[in-house]
Amino acid sequence: MKEFTRENIKNLVAYKVDAPQYEIIVNANESAYDFPMILKRQFCDDICNTDLNRYPEACFPELLEALSDYTGVPTEGIICGSGSDEVIALINQAFVDPGDVIVSHSPSFSMYEIWSSIANANYVPVPDLADHIPDLDSIIQKANELDAKIIYLCNPNNPTGYTFSREQILKVLNSVSALLILDEAYIEFFGESSVDLLKKYPNLLVLRTFSKAFGLAGIRCGYALGNKDIIDVLYKVKGPYNLNVMTQKIAVLALKNRDKILSHLGEIRSERETIKSELESLKTLKIYPSGSNFIFFETPLAQAIYQKLLDNNILIKWFKDTDRHPGSIRFSIGKPSENQQILSIIRKVVTENA
Amino acid sequence: MKEFTRENIKNLVAYKVDAPQYEIIVNANESAYDFPMILKRQFCDDICNTDLNRYPEACFPELLEALSDYTGVPTEGIICGSGSDEVIALINQAFVDPGDVIVSHSPSFSMYEIWSSIANANYVPVPDLADHIPDLDSIIQKANELDAKIIYLCNPNNPTGYTFSREQILKVLNSVSALLILDEAYIEFFGESSVDLLKKYPNLLVLRTFSKAFGLAGIRCGYALGNKDIIDVLYKVKGPYNLNVMTQKIAVLALKNRDKILSHLGEIRSERETIKSELESLKTLKIYPSGSNFIFFETPLAQAIYQKLLDNNILIKWFKDTDRHPGSIRFSIGKPSENQQILSIIRKVVTENA
Repeated sequence: MKEFTRENIKNLVAYKVDAPQYEIIVNANESAYDFPMILKRQFCDDICNTDLNRYPEACFPELLEALSDYTGVPTEGIICGSGSDEVIALINQAFVDPGDVIVSHSPSFSMYEIWSSIANANYVPVPDLADHIPDLDSIIQKANELDAKIIYLCNPNNPTGYTFSREQILKVLNSVSALLILDEAYIEFFGESSVDLLKKYPNLLVLRTFSKAFGLAGIRCGYALGNKDIIDVLYKVKGPYNLNVMTQKIAVLALKNRDKILSHLGEIRSERETIKSELESLKTLKIYPSGSNFIFFETPLAQAIYQKLLDNNILIKWFKDTDRHPGSIRFSIGKPSENQQILSIIRKVVTENA
Repeated sequence: MKEFTRENIKNLVAYKVDAPQYEIIVNANESAYDFPMILKRQFCDDICNTDLNRYPEACFPELLEALSDYTGVPTEGIICGSGSDEVIALINQAFVDPGDVIVSHSPSFSMYEIWSSIANANYVPVPDLADHIPDLDSIIQKANELDAKIIYLCNPNNPTGYTFSREQILKVLNSVSALLILDEAYIEFFGESSVDLLKKYPNLLVLRTFSKAFGLAGIRCGYALGNKDIIDVLYKVKGPYNLNVMTQKIAVLALKNRDKILSHLGEIRSERETIKSELESLKTLKIYPSGSNFIFFETPLAQAIYQKLLDNNILIKWFKDTDRHPGSIRFSIGKPSENQQILSIIRKVVTENA
């Protein structure tokens, strides 16, 4: 048979995993809090009165209005997709030709590289400086030297929790001609969005999601905020009906009830700082400051901690040793009782290996 | 500002339309029958017991099982997406390099050309012979002469309703080395699927959808059936969580209750034939045989018919005159009373212009 597969796709590995079945699941930075039952029931009433035999709204007008109200960005500067994943795929389809350069830093969200490979782009991850401080000067230098089409910065960064300051973001924006994509998937936990910079910088695009602070990873809804010129191009490559009617409706409901849904933010931040302090008292663990809903630390005991938690029916994210970094652990902030269980197991592993 | 947009995207036009607000909507080949209320309620009970804060199953195992049961194709030969649209986008990302040739015939489903443009492919539509008979010999010749990567045939064809015979499909499969994509979006109305040919032809891929016979255009679920080698490559380019949990659940529910949902098929076919006979009795209308849930005809009165129906709060699809073809009309089979309203208005326009 003729070979159909593109060269750049041949060595990719498909993401094929079953949903994790553990008592405590804190490996994917999901919210520990499900969508409130009272809102689920409202959603269901709405669905019972919705003609599911009809195509959904092509350009989700109600959702755009609700997002505009939430973000302050005019509706013409917003586009939605099936998770930030689809939005990133749209960005590539709109702007990235084979061979184009996409710059980010390492470690950051793994999908930037995967989507770049699919687009047959040249992905250039600039290694962090010591203590996982992103090497901003090198990022800027690489982007300009290679005439990069796109720069990705995840703020706060996944997996390290690093938060970029306003000064750092302005420095990048003022130094490059590339499209700067700020992935604000976790911004609600941090609080300092860069959305207001859209007014001044036409080459800025901000990504957001309902999967984290809004506790709706299951519905797959992400969105991009940008200037009309950029957003208009994304609409050209969007499938006519890319967002199903159920996702549109539940996302609107979430935004209209965001005070209730986001009421957990304070608790999550305070739990994060409590966990951080407690872990800092343990030997061999190097804990990083986090502006997000997860904790990241390095330790030679990473594998042992991962395994012990797994034995206790708890799933966290373990990053193996590399040449440059010791093994590390990332786990999402769970409910207080879950956090205590995790802490006590980590404490035990560290003590046993002291 | 630097120009970010890819050359092949610049001249595309975004699909930005509001959902149609008419009393009778028969322009998009949707089902006239909504998902049954008893099943909507079951779906809602399920959603109330589902953790929406968790990512959905990455590879929709329950849906694959249910689709396998429905189609007879093993689960490893099935992949799902947010409508056939996403599946077509995946096919391009997996197999189509810029400049690759994609062959189809004209007129057929407009998205083949749009997705080809987005992939920067070279789309070659072979014009139909007289009476909208696809020119199979030329399709085969073009595909071989241009070393096409992909051939699209829509069976039954949208918008003409033409049905390809088993012999015709075998002829293509036996004559080309391209990947033949048979779009069976409307196959349930016709009945003669080519899925059994997958066993013999590794270069065949079949597309299906829940948007037509299953009456679930709102949920956005399409799927491809193929051999494992081809499907495996599609999984490589699929976003990790491309299908939200609600779509996965409602699609499974639909498949498990397919006897009930597909019970309208007989009525739709019989209404179609009744409408066809009645229209055939009218002068100036050239009616085409249809194996689908819609009627297609050509007439110099196309625009007048379209306008008169619109004035009566009824939306159909009108194709303007071209050099090669007079104006034509496509409308989906509605409920019997809707069909009668449409017929009586068409009859009136024809009589008035006699």
